Amino acid sequence: MLMAFSTWQEIDARLARSRAIVVPIGSNEQHGPTGLLGTDWLCPEIIAHRASKASDILVAPTFNIGMAQHHLGFPGTISLRPSTFQAAIGDWMGSLAGCGFDRIYFLNGHGGNTNSIEAAFSEIYAKFSFGGHRAPFLLKLRNWWDLPGVMALAKNLFPTGHGSHATPSEIAITQAAYPEMVKSVAYAPQIAPEGPIYDALDFRARFPDGRIGSDPGLATLEKGCQLIDAAVRGLVEDLGTFVAEASPRPPSSVD
Amino acid sequence: MLMAFSTWQEIDARLARSRAIVVPIGSNEQHGPTGLLGTDWLCPEIIAHRASKASDILVAPTFNIGMAQHHLGFPGTISLRPSTFQAAIGDWMGSLAGCGFDRIYFLNGHGGNTNSIEAAFSEIYAKFSFGGHRAPFLLKLRNWWDLPGVMALAKNLFPTGHGSHATPSEIAITQAAYPEMVKSVAYAPQIAPEGPIYDALDFRARFPDGRIGSDPGLATLEKGCQLIDAAVRGLVEDLGTFVAEASPRPPSSVD
Amino acid sequence: MLMAFSTWQEIDARLARSRAIVVPIGSNEQHGPTGLLGTDWLCPEIIAHRASKASDILVAPTFNIGMAQHHLGFPGTISLRPSTFQAAIGDWMGSLAGCGFDRIYFLNGHGGNTNSIEAAFSEIYAKFSFGGHRAPFLLKLRNWWDLPGVMALAKNLFPTGHGSHATPSEIAITQAAYPEMVKSVAYAPQIAPEGPIYDALDFRARFPDGRIGSDPGLATLEKGCQLIDAAVRGLVEDLGTFVAEASPRPPSSVD
Amino acid sequence: MLMAFSTWQEIDARLARSRAIVVPIGSNEQHGPTGLLGTDWLCPEIIAHRASKASDILVAPTFNIGMAQHHLGFPGTISLRPSTFQAAIGDWMGSLAGCGFDRIYFLNGHGGNTNSIEAAFSEIYAKFSFGGHRAPFLLKLRNWWDLPGVMALAKNLFPTGHGSHATPSEIAITQAAYPEMVKSVAYAPQIAPEGPIYDALDFRARFPDGRIGSDPGLATLEKGCQLIDAAVRGLVEDLGTFVAEASPRPPSSVD
Amino acid sequence: MLMAFSTWQEIDARLARSRAIVVPIGSNEQHGPTGLLGTDWLCPEIIAHRASKASDILVAPTFNIGMAQHHLGFPGTISLRPSTFQAAIGDWMGSLAGCGFDRIYFLNGHGGNTNSIEAAFSEIYAKFSFGGHRAPFLLKLRNWWDLPGVMALAKNLFPTGHGSHATPSEIAITQAAYPEMVKSVAYAPQIAPEGPIYDALDFRARFPDGRIGSDPGLATLEKGCQLIDAAVRGLVEDLGTFVAEASPRPPSSVD
Amino acid sequence: MLMAFSTWQEIDARLARSRAIVVPIGSNEQHGPTGLLGTDWLCPEIIAHRASKASDILVAPTFNIGMAQHHLGFPGTISLRPSTFQAAIGDWMGSLAGCGFDRIYFLNGHGGNTNSIEAAFSEIYAKFSFGGHRAPFLLKLRNWWDLPGVMALAKNLFPTGHGSHATPSEIAITQAAYPEMVKSVAYAPQIAPEGPIYDALDFRARFPDGRIGSDPGLATLEKGCQLIDAAVRGLVEDLGTFVAEASPRPPSSVD
Repeated sequence: MLMAFSTWQEIDARLARSRAIVVPIGSNEQHGPTGLLGTDWLCPEIIAHRASKASDILVAPTFNIGMAQHHLGFPGTISLRPSTFQAAIGDWMGSLAGCGFDRIYFLNGHGGNTNSIEAAFSEIYAKFSFGGHRAPFLLKLRNWWDLPGVMALAKNLFPTGHGSHATPSEIAITQAAYPEMVKSVAYAPQIAPEGPIYDALDFRARFPDGRIGSDPGLATLEKGCQLIDAAVRGLVEDLGTFVAEASPRPPSSVD
Repeated sequence: MLMAFSTWQEIDARLARSRAIVVPIGSNEQHGPTGLLGTDWLCPEIIAHRASKASDILVAPTFNIGMAQHHLGFPGTISLRPSTFQAAIGDWMGSLAGCGFDRIYFLNGHGGNTNSIEAAFSEIYAKFSFGGHRAPFLLKLRNWWDLPGVMALAKNLFPTGHGSHATPSEIAITQAAYPEMVKSVAYAPQIAPEGPIYDALDFRARFPDGRIGSDPGLATLEKGCQLIDAAVRGLVEDLGTFVAEASPRPPSSVD
Repeated sequence: MLMAFSTWQEIDARLARSRAIVVPIGSNEQHGPTGLLGTDWLCPEIIAHRASKASDILVAPTFNIGMAQHHLGFPGTISLRPSTFQAAIGDWMGSLAGCGFDRIYFLNGHGGNTNSIEAAFSEIYAKFSFGGHRAPFLLKLRNWWDLPGVMALAKNLFPTGHGSHATPSEIAITQAAYPEMVKSVAYAPQIAPEGPIYDALDFRARFPDGRIGSDPGLATLEKGCQLIDAAVRGLVEDLGTFVAEASPRPPSSVD
Repeated sequence: MLMAFSTWQEIDARLARSRAIVVPIGSNEQHGPTGLLGTDWLCPEIIAHRASKASDILVAPTFNIGMAQHHLGFPGTISLRPSTFQAAIGDWMGSLAGCGFDRIYFLNGHGGNTNSIEAAFSEIYAKFSFGGHRAPFLLKLRNWWDLPGVMALAKNLFPTGHGSHATPSEIAITQAAYPEMVKSVAYAPQIAPEGPIYDALDFRARFPDGRIGSDPGLATLEKGCQLIDAAVRGLVEDLGTFVAEASPRPPSSVD
Repeated sequence: MLMAFSTWQEIDARLARSRAIVVPIGSNEQHGPTGLLGTDWLCPEIIAHRASKASDILVAPTFNIGMAQHHLGFPGTISLRPSTFQAAIGDWMGSLAGCGFDRIYFLNGHGGNTNSIEAAFSEIYAKFSFGGHRAPFLLKLRNWWDLPGVMALAKNLFPTGHGSHATPSEIAITQAAYPEMVKSVAYAPQIAPEGPIYDALDFRARFPDGRIGSDPGLATLEKGCQLIDAAVRGLVEDLGTFVAEASPRPPSSVD
Repeated sequence: MLMAFSTWQEIDARLARSRAIVVPIGSNEQHGPTGLLGTDWLCPEIIAHRASKASDILVAPTFNIGMAQHHLGFPGTISLRPSTFQAAIGDWMGSLAGCGFDRIYFLNGHGGNTNSIEAAFSEIYAKFSFGGHRAPFLLKLRNWWDLPGVMALAKNLFPTGHGSHATPSEIAITQAAYPEMVKSVAYAPQIAPEGPIYDALDFRARFPDGRIGSDPGLATLEKGCQLIDAAVRGLVEDLGTFVAEASPRPPSSVD
């Protein structure tokens, strides 16, 4: 069930039986010479939307702009500052928790987002922790490549040249979902260099075409389908575990 | 041309010939008993994406969560606070201007966004104005219903019961674009009440099913198509005017 | 009754019978070659102070600095950034609501303020809306020229050359109230150009003497008196309507 | 010369010969059973306006709302939070410095403002200090009672019962300037208690009628005139010293 | 008792009998050619730690970075902006108050901190004052040199050349506590100049070696011991007075 | 070399030959029934101070309060909110970079800090990336247990019962450095439970005595010495690698 295509009354009815929601979150940023700028928000959206058909999962609109300051040296990148990003996550959570969701699960598609998302969670919890109150919800972050079964498959499909940015995994997923958008070039070098990440101009100097350690030429539509299938299964399983997690009651001496 | 489905090199090449971009912006919020929660971001996205096919227009990813505090009494609404919203717009603009865009055009689908968007523009310009520098870009906000030719058509199509929230115009546009999502109920009353907007609980008390002054039952897929066509023409025209606007040079005594 | 010239005990006593207050709000910014820098805060102050004598209206101190980033290219302009302005409005409202005012009415004298004031209102309401609480007050913004009867009179008095900045209307009001401060020059051109507003240096280049579309030479003290009289009547009426407005109770299912 | 009653061109001309400006700053807050709520912004405004007639001094509009959180337990008090207050001071200074003022002098009327004003100055300087740049202006804060000659006169006029809030000095100054607003009651006790200041409800419990250590019944219009005269002389002298202060050039090794 | 070297259960037990805590707070900044960069946080730490042995006082970890923007022209200075400093103090206080401390006493070692600390206190109280609630704690700031008996001793020990930065008092205290760190140079001039404080480069130009009005060569280890002894006695006394201070109950009409 | 015990001139001289600095950073928070509240800032301080004697390393004052919202249910915990923490890190970095440090290395002692520290780094870099400038410094975060050789040793010393909070490793390090502070109790259970981390009251309910997965009873002073020795070697090596890292020049087409 996709929230954006539902009415408020449908959400109201659903909340009576399930208080969990999945938020696809990513980034719009350069992904090398052939990767789509939207790769990092398209991947979790693709996986979550498929999962919502495969299982009774509610999916929020996609949070499509994240923390990508290091990619700002390449045109087409749109980034929030970490402080803005965290504030926005706080408002999303406040809205969702306010109408009754108590298991909010971020399916993330951009490694550069994780620190800010976790920090945002802590900022949200801090309002309760400083006030001596219990938060009425649990928040969880999962990168799609960390879903059960996904990274093992990716390593199997791409034993070399997977890398960490503009990976053949993510390129393949977008190819599978948007085959009309497949692009191809001759990569030079075939496998991009590795290295640390600092600011945007340093990034562009280290990684001239935007890739880190990857050979996106390995991506195929078929491999993308396999990855999507694995990720959908992983998401259904992982979300189920999260929903089932009991939050213990504090001892009476604490209340 | 859709930015999210382009590579950074394609954007780089495009910037050499055009520095304008359209950002669809809206809100995810209740739209009465039959309107989709995503109506306000779907409408400008639908119009902008159609325009990008009809004309050589570049469209950014959709800014899908806006300022909807007054709708938070209805489940499924996600809102940013005005302060967060303005900060996020600032970062989007900083990213786009940083890679060379100098005519940034927001196509807006939510009336509640306009004050915050305009205030965000002023906050962005203020950085330059306080510093005594000229901003290297121009920003423009246009609601899709204010595009040339659109409101006249809407009034013609819906002489009564148009209202201002969950209007038959916006419902019709989403019906035209997503016919499989059309929902219908018996409205009571047929035309919703009018009234002022304050906080969320006050809103819900005034407008129990979420509509303001509208009869969404008037919407049809065919009328939606007409509205989209008019809006696409209006956008192409309006953006052209904006791009053509010359920014005068300051007198030398000011520099 | 002017708050600044009252004691706290007088305000305390008044609150027992009336919980409404008018806040004159404006800006200190260039108003062309003859307009006073204080025009935009003087006009609502003049009107509100007159109204407080004509009717039982309580008037707060004047909020005299607003959002005028686009005028910063001219000496004597003092502006808050939109973010600062909104925070300050929030604190004013928090103070007034905290001591019991529940109908807070801004009489505004600067068009550039309206987006930020409305956004500030939304930020204030959002605290309640996110928390699931009802705001214990209603906020209203009214530009003095939008008071009932005023714009019709202005158009009658100044059928051409009214424009939108350094208008003969506002100049006339300050002339009527401060006749010793009337200034005059030869305007060139007689009617200033029109155009869009972006940052401060762009503004100064478009509007070299600061006026937009106006001929302030049309202002006379007598016309100012007429405008003040109309505005005072309009304010008394409009405030009465606002005070009388009932806020509906939310349905029990929402509480 | 009053900025609000000048045109931008008059300020422009003045800047060619003098780059100093006085900003009256105060608070709107309870001042005991007879003190005007506006006392703390009226006093510096009265003194500065008189000084602008007595000498060639430029006076900005009055910054009339300050940091008065501890007075919020009494109706009619309007306070900014320290963080908002500091941000607003920053924007005022940015505006004034941006058009060329390089000696900005705050004449303050509220003791509770001083920490925030000084902290705001440091925040403003910090932008330059962190950036390795020299601020192109000097900022100064002076309470009107600390002007040369004023406190000695106050102690002479009111050897007992001066206290620190709702003092006979400040009451007398407002009486001298606004004789039609003089209010009187029987004070009980005649001299109010002393004590520390914490939050608003604690304040109200310690100081039930709002006064701290003062007997405002000692104020007379004549004493007010004497205090104003002394303060005007003190302001002219103190501002002169400030304007004359040379800012040393940094050693070349630092540049 | 030092908090950092205690367990949470020891603090828990202590809170049952005492709810007071001392927070040493200072700055890491240049202290002239012989003063340690840590002088301003070392001094209150030294005094507080000694006092915790001499009396039953609980001491928090040292808040070692303060507001020192004016010293940023000298290497080794670390400063918070006033806004950051105030936010951090707010969080410290929120943490300490949240676990039950209700008398929180800052022992300060840096004059440049005082405005920001007091403003931070007001910001903290404002949350309660705006909300109409009583703060459940009292906050107090004391510079170590203002402790009972200390300044009189300092003036006795250093009748000339005490000055206000890199004073022989503070140098002597660090010498007494860290005799292995004593440094010495020939001062030129022997007594440093006096002057006002603005931004960092202005500061460095006025005070080339960092001292203000002081002759640190007067410091001796023995004088440092005397000062520490006096300060420890002063702290025990002053804290006792603070702890004993009753907070009056608000009148019922206020509750 | 310890910055706090140096003069500004000593730092100035050192900068001529080395522009690297180590900042110990941690948290003051509960560490179970026997762990010191200061454990997380004491450990990196102990290691860094030892390293500064073993090698030519400059160590800044310890950043002793971090992000510990989840521990606020236990007395003695002091936490910054993530937003405050990030702002403070920004100011520390601005101060250090401003005086010339270009390799700033955080040695961290608290797992809960890492997301906020990395997000703070991104916020700092973003100022440069949005502006199109290169940051003149590189920032690095390393947890002491992730230093080369340390975790392997810890697993060897504590094959079971290491856990992730109040670990025998960190307890042992504080025992080795402060043997007089060793505390002991009977743990029940011997090895604490594992589990996820949300807000403070949830944490306290899951982990009643504060430990996560650990048996601190395994700690000994001797093992602490071994861990310190390994960490000192690891720090010297790791810092050396960081200092040696070349930052590539951007291609001329980017400049």
